[in-house]
Amino acid sequence: MKRKDIIRLNSTPHIISSYSVVGKKEFQGPLGRLFDEHSNDMRFGRKTWELAESEMQKRALVGAITKSGIPANKMGWIFAGDLQNQCAASSYGLMDFDLPFIGLYGACSTFGEALISASIAIESKAISTAAVVTSSHFCTAERQFRFPLPYGNQRQPIAQRTVTGAGAFILSNEGNGARITEVMVGRIVDKGISDANNMGAAMAPAAADTLYRYFNESGTCPSDFDVIVTGDLASEGEWLLRELLRKEGIDLGASYTDCGLMIYNMKEQDVHAGASGCGCSCVVFSGFFMKKLMSGEIKNMLLVTTGALMNTGSLNQGNTIPGIAHLVRIEGGQT
Amino acid sequence: MKRKDIIRLNSTPHIISSYSVVGKKEFQGPLGRLFDEHSNDMRFGRKTWELAESEMQKRALVGAITKSGIPANKMGWIFAGDLQNQCAASSYGLMDFDLPFIGLYGACSTFGEALISASIAIESKAISTAAVVTSSHFCTAERQFRFPLPYGNQRQPIAQRTVTGAGAFILSNEGNGARITEVMVGRIVDKGISDANNMGAAMAPAAADTLYRYFNESGTCPSDFDVIVTGDLASEGEWLLRELLRKEGIDLGASYTDCGLMIYNMKEQDVHAGASGCGCSCVVFSGFFMKKLMSGEIKNMLLVTTGALMNTGSLNQGNTIPGIAHLVRIEGGQT
Repeated sequence: MKRKDIIRLNSTPHIISSYSVVGKKEFQGPLGRLFDEHSNDMRFGRKTWELAESEMQKRALVGAITKSGIPANKMGWIFAGDLQNQCAASSYGLMDFDLPFIGLYGACSTFGEALISASIAIESKAISTAAVVTSSHFCTAERQFRFPLPYGNQRQPIAQRTVTGAGAFILSNEGNGARITEVMVGRIVDKGISDANNMGAAMAPAAADTLYRYFNESGTCPSDFDVIVTGDLASEGEWLLRELLRKEGIDLGASYTDCGLMIYNMKEQDVHAGASGCGCSCVVFSGFFMKKLMSGEIKNMLLVTTGALMNTGSLNQGNTIPGIAHLVRIEGGQT
Repeated sequence: MKRKDIIRLNSTPHIISSYSVVGKKEFQGPLGRLFDEHSNDMRFGRKTWELAESEMQKRALVGAITKSGIPANKMGWIFAGDLQNQCAASSYGLMDFDLPFIGLYGACSTFGEALISASIAIESKAISTAAVVTSSHFCTAERQFRFPLPYGNQRQPIAQRTVTGAGAFILSNEGNGARITEVMVGRIVDKGISDANNMGAAMAPAAADTLYRYFNESGTCPSDFDVIVTGDLASEGEWLLRELLRKEGIDLGASYTDCGLMIYNMKEQDVHAGASGCGCSCVVFSGFFMKKLMSGEIKNMLLVTTGALMNTGSLNQGNTIPGIAHLVRIEGGQT
């Protein structure tokens, strides 16, 4: 018997609240007014960019817990991750909550990975509520992965810009509105891409692998969904994913888009191929999609978060960039 | 109602096989002959130390899958992590298995975190089998966290030595022998330690927090267990944990030990305070404790894995070292 990769959740974990915190450039983008909070100060009142990212996580989780109406000390486990080495943004940002903590790393796929892990924990009945938190920060990511900002490095046209943002979500075994009905954990896929400026190309094959297996096993096709959204392939990865699936006879069509193409004004904000970072898909999902799911405007969507699993040292040593993509099916409207 | 922190698992996930791969120094230690495989070449035949760590993970998982008798393509999800930036050892080491992959980061607590995450996924019935893999490598850790080895840095007496090793475990919802009956996810605890050479002191308060809450909620005491083992506090953290719990009226007694004190000959191998690293507790558990659990010599033990959740940048910026400790109760003997 073949392994079943799609997990149908009997508990259909409900996303009962969410909260998004973003930086100035994200606020100036087309979704700006949909985010709960923004700061014009890239340090968010803290002394370093790294602690600013932790501060965003903290504010996002306080906001999501407050909206949920669940007392903080009755919350289940936190599932969190970020792009900083050793996921330090999450450790420093969330330690004051005194809640059981599961640290995750899936690069920019971490948001989907965290939704899956939290859903599975609720499905197991180990916990009845969970918090999901992910983040990224443009300045911390540039300093860590590329060059310190004062160096004034020229970015390539196919490069993506790391989003400054954090999103937090409260999941519960009961509630109304958006609910997670299926999840599929991604496999690591490496097609030999080694250009650190072209993450979209490195991650698209993983997204294609996950979506192909999902459609195949479920017997569905793209037109069965109101929205299929990846996060974040940006312009290079978006067309490559369409091409890869077209070769398998799957046309993603008009319902497909990518979070990395939504958060900035691509023509005016000088963001090259678009957005990326653990903070992109979570704030776009919180600010934009959650509202449409809660209202019932979106009834059925697939969220596929994509990550590039290298580090700077591995690239300097001549290795390729493995990718991964995790899928979450979310259904909206009143249950 | 207070949140219940101890999760009792109805599925009692069985650890049906395990496999350990270690370096030369670990093989020369008192547990050397108990490990499945070792190499005198710190590069394990690969061109870099980083890829050597990936190679250890791969060999460990191949070994554990082979021992389990389950075909690789019928395996459930992999839960893995390591200490390399962005957990790269796991990504490069495990990508060829083509299995759904959940990347975890909990520093040296990752082994316990992975056992918990895999157990919860089995408890949820999403999967019936899972693989857990963690690793560390002395040379990659020194280069990344401290100094490149050729620099010849003097290590402080309270410093721990990162173990070169990888362990893999196959968990199943059915089987005999060692089974996971309870888990408790740790909270992040920060007592203000900022000395990167004294990780034991940074992690001991987290271990004390987890064990105190466990004994309190379960109504058990240390003498109810054949073994209580932490991984890895080493000599500094071991006595500090005893002291912290003694102040709460809990005497850990003779059944308590630490994986970081077991793998090397503390008098002869010049390892200062003892061992550490994601690879320490997993190979000690695989090589030493699994055999005693399978034979029934150990019937009831607590494994508490401990992690220090900082990175080098956060310490250079003057931050403290948050710690975390995850608890897994494992019962042995025939069911």
